[in-house]
Amino acid sequence: MSLPIVRGFKLAGVPAGIKKKAGARDLALVLADAPCTTAVVLTKNLVRAAPVEITRARARGGKAQAILVNAGCANACTGKAGERAAYASTAAVADVLGIDEAKVLPASTGVIGVVLPSEKIVAHAQALVDDLSADGAARFAEAIMTTDRGPKTAHRTLVVGKETITVLGIAKGAGMIHPNMATTLGFVLTDARLGRSFAKKTLREATALSFNCVSVDGDTSTNDTIVLMASGAASKKKLDDSPKDAKRFATAVREVLEALGRMIVADGEGAEHLVRFEVTGASSDAAARKVAATIATSPLVKTALHGCDPNWGRIVAAAGRAGVRFDPEQVRVTIGDVVVFDRGLPHGDAETERRASETMKAAEYVITVSLGKGKGRAHYDTCDFGHAYVNVNADYRS
Amino acid sequence: MSLPIVRGFKLAGVPAGIKKKAGARDLALVLADAPCTTAVVLTKNLVRAAPVEITRARARGGKAQAILVNAGCANACTGKAGERAAYASTAAVADVLGIDEAKVLPASTGVIGVVLPSEKIVAHAQALVDDLSADGAARFAEAIMTTDRGPKTAHRTLVVGKETITVLGIAKGAGMIHPNMATTLGFVLTDARLGRSFAKKTLREATALSFNCVSVDGDTSTNDTIVLMASGAASKKKLDDSPKDAKRFATAVREVLEALGRMIVADGEGAEHLVRFEVTGASSDAAARKVAATIATSPLVKTALHGCDPNWGRIVAAAGRAGVRFDPEQVRVTIGDVVVFDRGLPHGDAETERRASETMKAAEYVITVSLGKGKGRAHYDTCDFGHAYVNVNADYRS
Repeated sequence: MSLPIVRGFKLAGVPAGIKKKAGARDLALVLADAPCTTAVVLTKNLVRAAPVEITRARARGGKAQAILVNAGCANACTGKAGERAAYASTAAVADVLGIDEAKVLPASTGVIGVVLPSEKIVAHAQALVDDLSADGAARFAEAIMTTDRGPKTAHRTLVVGKETITVLGIAKGAGMIHPNMATTLGFVLTDARLGRSFAKKTLREATALSFNCVSVDGDTSTNDTIVLMASGAASKKKLDDSPKDAKRFATAVREVLEALGRMIVADGEGAEHLVRFEVTGASSDAAARKVAATIATSPLVKTALHGCDPNWGRIVAAAGRAGVRFDPEQVRVTIGDVVVFDRGLPHGDAETERRASETMKAAEYVITVSLGKGKGRAHYDTCDFGHAYVNVNADYRS
Repeated sequence: MSLPIVRGFKLAGVPAGIKKKAGARDLALVLADAPCTTAVVLTKNLVRAAPVEITRARARGGKAQAILVNAGCANACTGKAGERAAYASTAAVADVLGIDEAKVLPASTGVIGVVLPSEKIVAHAQALVDDLSADGAARFAEAIMTTDRGPKTAHRTLVVGKETITVLGIAKGAGMIHPNMATTLGFVLTDARLGRSFAKKTLREATALSFNCVSVDGDTSTNDTIVLMASGAASKKKLDDSPKDAKRFATAVREVLEALGRMIVADGEGAEHLVRFEVTGASSDAAARKVAATIATSPLVKTALHGCDPNWGRIVAAAGRAGVRFDPEQVRVTIGDVVVFDRGLPHGDAETERRASETMKAAEYVITVSLGKGKGRAHYDTCDFGHAYVNVNADYRS
C-alpha cells in the first residue's frame, strides 16, 4: 500500500491486546505537530459511547492535536466506568506525548457494553508513541479495523499556488443490511491550512454527500465518528481565503469520503455486489434521497441483488412505501442499461430479464429508478445480502 | 383442522393453475347468502395492485357479498391489462353465482408484475362455485397461501343473548425481516349482525393492535387486504346496539387478528423463534410503539435472535435511533426473566449471559425493554433472521 505522507502528521498502529486475536494491531494514534484546525461529525444516536461525548466536548473549540483510536471495544453503554476509562487512556497517551490531554480525541469501535480496558492502553502508550512515523498510515488503517476485510484508505492531491496539498482519508466499517450498528470511523488528514468554520462546513457537507448516501447513516451507531484535521504545514495562508481553492478542496474531501464510503459498502459483511441506486425525476433531491434510501436498505431488495434477480417488483414496492408522492405510471427502472420496468409496467421479455440478470452478476453496477419529470435526484450505494451476512452477525460476539 | 361453521357463508378453494405447482389450490371464494355489512383495511402503499383499487371502490358502500382470492399472482404493476383481468375474473364468478359483480371483492397475492391470468379463473369459475360449502374454510385457507408453511386460521365464539356468535379469521402471509412485501391477506367472517360504522371501526382498531404490531405493516405491500364480513345470520338485532356486546365482539376480532398475526410472524420465512418485544416506561404509547418497531425490525437484532445471542447492545442501539427521547441511564433490558442490562449498563456476569442465551433457544419468548418511568407501552412481535430467509428470498421467482 503506497500512501502519501501528509506533512505535519505522524501516525501509529500497534497491538495492545484489546482485540481477541493475539498480536493484532488494535491501538492507533494520529499526532499533529501542534494543535490544529479540527472538525468532527458524530453520531446522532441517543445512546452514545463515552469517547463520542468526550470528542464532542474536546473538539468544540475547533482545535485538536491527536486522535487516539482503539478497535475491539466500543466502550458504549459503559456509564461512568467507561468515561473514566476513556479519560485515563487519553491522559496516558497525552502524558507520554507531553501534550495537553484535552487536545486528544478518543474514538472506539468494537463490542458494546464492555468497559474499555484502559490498563492495556496505559501499558502500551509508550509503544504506541514509539511507533509514530510520518509513513505510519498503513499501520493506523490496519489497527482501526473490526470486521473489515481490509484497510480502507483514499487520497487526493491538488496544487494550490506552488504547493501540493494532500488529503488522506482512512476509514473502517463494513456495510450492513441496515445501517444501525455499522460503526464508521473516518479520519481525513490534510496539510492544508483551513479556517475553523470552513473545515466544519466542508466536513459536514462532504459527509452528507458520501457516508450518508451509503449504508452507514450518521445518526445510527453509538460510536460513529468522522474527524478532519488540517495541520496547515503546506502553507502559511488559509486555503479557504480563495473561494476557488476552497471549492476544489471541498471536492477533494468529498471524493475521498465518497471513495471510502463505497469501500465500506463493498466490504459489506458478506457482500458480493456493490450496487448504486440512482433515483431521478423526483419532486426534490430530498424526496429522491428518501426513495433511494428506502430501496437501498430493503432486505427484500438486497436478497434479490444477492440472487441476481432483476426483481423490479420489490424495487417499485419499496419506492411506493417511501412516503414520497409520485405517479406509479411514470416509473422506469433500469438495471445497468436494461430497462426492466417502464411507465408502471414490466418491460421486455424473458431475454430482457436474462440480460438484466447477467448485468447483476457484476461486482459493481447501477440501478436507475426514474420517478417522473421532476428535477430531484439522489443516489444511495448498497450491497447485496447473503448467507455470509447471517454468519457474521449471528455470532459476532462469540 | 376443525373449523367452526359461520352461518350465512359458504367457502371454496380449488386449483386453477395459477401457482406453478400443478394441482395446488390457488383460487378461493367466500360467498355470503346475501349482500352484507363489510369493512376493509387496505395497503397504504403508493403502488397498489389492481384488485386493491377495485376492492376499495366496491367496499365503499359498506356492503359486499363475495370475496374472490387468488394466490400465485399479485396482479400488481400490471396497469390497464391488470385492471381488465381483475374485472373479468370477478365478472365471470359473479355470473356463475348469479349475483351483482360489483358485490365481489377481489384480492390477489403472489408475484408482482404479471397480469392475472383471468382466462384460468374464467375457466375454473364453475368448478370454484361448485366447491362452495359451509365447511369449506380449510380449502379456502389452503388456496390463499403463498410461501406460508401452512394455513392460518383462528376463531372465537361468544354468547350474545341466546345466540352463539362465531368470529372466524383466515389469513396468509409470512413474516419478513422488513415488512415491505409480505403481502398479508386477512379475512374475518362472522354471523353477527353489525352496523356499518361499527364494523369499520372495529376492523381498523383491531388491525392497529394486531397486524400492525407484527412484522407486517398496513402501509407496505402492494396487495395487503383485510376484510371483515358480517352475515347477520345469527340475529335480526344489531349486536352493536349493546355497548357491552360491542366491546366483547371487538375484543374477539382483535384476538382473532392477533392470533393470526403471531402465526404470520412465527411462519416468518425461515424463522425459528417468535419473539415479542415489550417496550414499557415510554413517554407515550406512540413513542413505545416506535421504539418497539425499530428494535423488532432491525436486521442486526434479528440475526442476534437467530444466534441466541443476548446482544442487548444491538437492542439498546436500535432504541437509541428510534427518534424517541428517553434517558439511556434509565434503560433496562430483560430477556425472558433475565435482566441483562440495567440503568444504562450491562447487568450480571457470564452466567447471566448463559441463562439469557438459554432462554433464547425457546420457540417463543419475550424481551422487555423498559425505557424509564413513563406510562407508555407497546409491543411488537418479530422473528429471527437466518439462512432460510436468504434462501427463500434470493430466488423467490425462480
